[in-house]
Amino acid sequence: MNYKMMGKFISRILLVEAVFMTPALFISIVRDETAAVAGFLLSMMIILLLALVLMLLCSRASKGFYAREGLVCVGASWIVMSLLGCLPFFVSGEIPDFMDALFETVSGFTTTGATVLGDIESMSHGLLYWRSFTHWLGGMGVLVFVLAISSGGDSKSGFTMHLLRAESPGPKVGKLVPKMKTTAEILYAIYILLTILNIIFLLIGKMPLFDAVCTALGTAGTGGFGVKNDSIAGYSPYLQNVCTVFMLLFGVNFTCYYMLLIRQLRCVWRDEELRLYFATVLASVAVIAWNIRGLYATAEETIRHAAFQVASIVTTTGFATTDFDLWPSLSKLILLTLMLVGACAGSTGGGFKFARLLLILKSIKRSVRQVLQPNKVQVVRINNQPISERVIENTHAYLSIYVLIIVVSCILVSVDGFSVTTNISAVIACFNNIGPGFEAVGPLCNFAGFGYLSKLVLIIDMLAGRLEIFPIFILFSGAAWRRR
Amino acid sequence: MNYKMMGKFISRILLVEAVFMTPALFISIVRDETAAVAGFLLSMMIILLLALVLMLLCSRASKGFYAREGLVCVGASWIVMSLLGCLPFFVSGEIPDFMDALFETVSGFTTTGATVLGDIESMSHGLLYWRSFTHWLGGMGVLVFVLAISSGGDSKSGFTMHLLRAESPGPKVGKLVPKMKTTAEILYAIYILLTILNIIFLLIGKMPLFDAVCTALGTAGTGGFGVKNDSIAGYSPYLQNVCTVFMLLFGVNFTCYYMLLIRQLRCVWRDEELRLYFATVLASVAVIAWNIRGLYATAEETIRHAAFQVASIVTTTGFATTDFDLWPSLSKLILLTLMLVGACAGSTGGGFKFARLLLILKSIKRSVRQVLQPNKVQVVRINNQPISERVIENTHAYLSIYVLIIVVSCILVSVDGFSVTTNISAVIACFNNIGPGFEAVGPLCNFAGFGYLSKLVLIIDMLAGRLEIFPIFILFSGAAWRRR
Repeated sequence: MNYKMMGKFISRILLVEAVFMTPALFISIVRDETAAVAGFLLSMMIILLLALVLMLLCSRASKGFYAREGLVCVGASWIVMSLLGCLPFFVSGEIPDFMDALFETVSGFTTTGATVLGDIESMSHGLLYWRSFTHWLGGMGVLVFVLAISSGGDSKSGFTMHLLRAESPGPKVGKLVPKMKTTAEILYAIYILLTILNIIFLLIGKMPLFDAVCTALGTAGTGGFGVKNDSIAGYSPYLQNVCTVFMLLFGVNFTCYYMLLIRQLRCVWRDEELRLYFATVLASVAVIAWNIRGLYATAEETIRHAAFQVASIVTTTGFATTDFDLWPSLSKLILLTLMLVGACAGSTGGGFKFARLLLILKSIKRSVRQVLQPNKVQVVRINNQPISERVIENTHAYLSIYVLIIVVSCILVSVDGFSVTTNISAVIACFNNIGPGFEAVGPLCNFAGFGYLSKLVLIIDMLAGRLEIFPIFILFSGAAWRRR
Repeated sequence: MNYKMMGKFISRILLVEAVFMTPALFISIVRDETAAVAGFLLSMMIILLLALVLMLLCSRASKGFYAREGLVCVGASWIVMSLLGCLPFFVSGEIPDFMDALFETVSGFTTTGATVLGDIESMSHGLLYWRSFTHWLGGMGVLVFVLAISSGGDSKSGFTMHLLRAESPGPKVGKLVPKMKTTAEILYAIYILLTILNIIFLLIGKMPLFDAVCTALGTAGTGGFGVKNDSIAGYSPYLQNVCTVFMLLFGVNFTCYYMLLIRQLRCVWRDEELRLYFATVLASVAVIAWNIRGLYATAEETIRHAAFQVASIVTTTGFATTDFDLWPSLSKLILLTLMLVGACAGSTGGGFKFARLLLILKSIKRSVRQVLQPNKVQVVRINNQPISERVIENTHAYLSIYVLIIVVSCILVSVDGFSVTTNISAVIACFNNIGPGFEAVGPLCNFAGFGYLSKLVLIIDMLAGRLEIFPIFILFSGAAWRRR
């Protein structure tokens, strides 16, 4: 284990975190929120101090850096960021319980959006902004972010390569351009551009600036923290529709936007994952709109709510315009299924990802065919590219781990005695980084009622889900920490 | 497709079915149940007539028989047996709806034990016996059964080989002895012996003969149809414990009994699946007994109910001594997880099977290790035998299909508007051949409330679960029916 390199990396992450608290501090100063100002100042001091100590301790790091170290680094840095990122909530006293503050921050950085807060509107503006900003930071991954602003000096030692491998969601984020750092910069530029566009469209609909910025940050990270107790329900139909569209846009594989930029329209049009994604969204909206007919006054309202909730769940954002916990069983089970699937690979969304689903569906089809025609060699293809057996195996294995984690988590969380549906949906909503579930953790409720053990399990689920399981797994495995 | 061979095979199945209706007919005659007598006589006539027609049509079958034909044959024969096996219920008027009668019969042959009957005790004795007997027939698989009594003339053409491959549950049923037919006979002898032992132990506890026979048939097939409205709750603690022990015995891989017979005790003692099975049972009983403490008067009663329900669910039998739907959330989620796992491979139980779980756990462990030590070749071993990559891949793929079927079924079943927990547990209980689930399909309730579409989906789930998915999948795939 190259501890010094790891320390150096984390010290850099901490610096970035402290710097990014400045806008939130500024908002608190302007709004005259004394407790929040004190909270931010104290937190920033602690973080900077820690960064300084780490930097001094790890100044002479050697260059070698391997896959397992990349994975451990990613896992550790998310945990460190969350542990220190929750300080403003805790120090200011606005979330007096440390475990709650940690839950809220992990939920932010992992772009989950599950909250322990009953009354969001009573929070100070500085902390509401910081809460939404953690989504945005988490969205593209702390590491792609750090990569983009880092000097890039380490890329020769394979450092950035291994980090990005741990971070990139799903089997499909290819290197767009040869240099890893340039790739990160392109993805990040697209991300910023879309966020700004989102803010502009929200401002056009007369949303207050503060609300617009926070909502856009939550949308971009597919997080789901809002600034209102009723999430997006109180805004105008136009604003709700803007959110629907941008949520769906942030659920698309970012490689597609790059392809659009270099005018590879054919590639985007023929992308099988993208087609499956939009087909699933359309079909789900249609079935749910039919299923909830009669619950709302007009057809426009019915379709608007159906489309919003489908977009919110499939992209793992977790905003709500209505209490979908009151919807009929069919609609709820469709939403539960969409929770499991998640967004496209290479997007800011969580979940299992459409790319993996596509691969699983195609390999199942092949299995059936192989029984019928045992002597014919059959290759699984996506976008006309043959997929290696190794990738298919890994995807099936991923699903196995995925199911196992959900089952074990459900059992652990159920110790608190909530209903079966509450437990299952809470675990799925956290593990897939969505936010709200059903019943006691429905869109109008929160996670405050769970005990410490359950909150810890859900925190680990959120991290494991966001990091696509492996880095967190390896962090808890003793072998990773042994010296070679 | 060798249609003639298939017809010949099915005609033989039908003959067997008609012959096995005789004891039930006899019981109805003795008990003076006119409607049931008429029902059985008419049904037997119809079945024999059909068998005769098929036999005449398919008298000159050619010998070639391939894997896909074996699979189609298995799938088709279960459907035909169920379609005709439900006639006594329907013709006698005791289950006036044909879909309900079919559901009950499929539930019987697949050893599920999910019922549409609200008042079981109002049924005639002949039909109650037939209902339990379908479990027993289904238990070891119609085909192992037919194999054991068949002339064996077809075994040279690979016929029996392909059939057993489709039927044998899990990756672990090896050929015990070189000849397939002998293997079937040995397994069958153990099965009959254990059933008789079960009856004797029940009679010792003063259970009436009719109840003892039906209960033993339901236990042996890991089915779960009883003859009382409160399942096993009304019997003495001794009888309940006898059921617990025998349910667990029928959930063991039958190869272990063969090993015991030839005194390979070491093999059995070191069997990793068996160890995982009993360890899981013990751990589940301990946690549930702790979780439900205070619900019952004495510690003996608490442990007895915990052990009974765990044994009933893990072996996918589905008997009940208490309404476990009233248990706390933790106990319910443990039971729900045990439903998913099911019994050992090579037993009469359904579900995913412990052998597969073991393989998945070991391969996940290997995946994590491979990230840490990418250059080391690591082999997955079970009982010290290296497992081929092909088997591991297939097991992961099996889990993928398994999850997919559960998700799709849940969505289809939810059209009827029952609660999320009801829908999920109904699908899991049918697909894994257990029987009762939670809430509206809890141990004291039944499946009568579901609509035709849901019942059809659940019927397909029961068949797919019992036949380990593939034969049913292939039956619905057009390619299987095309002529070569």
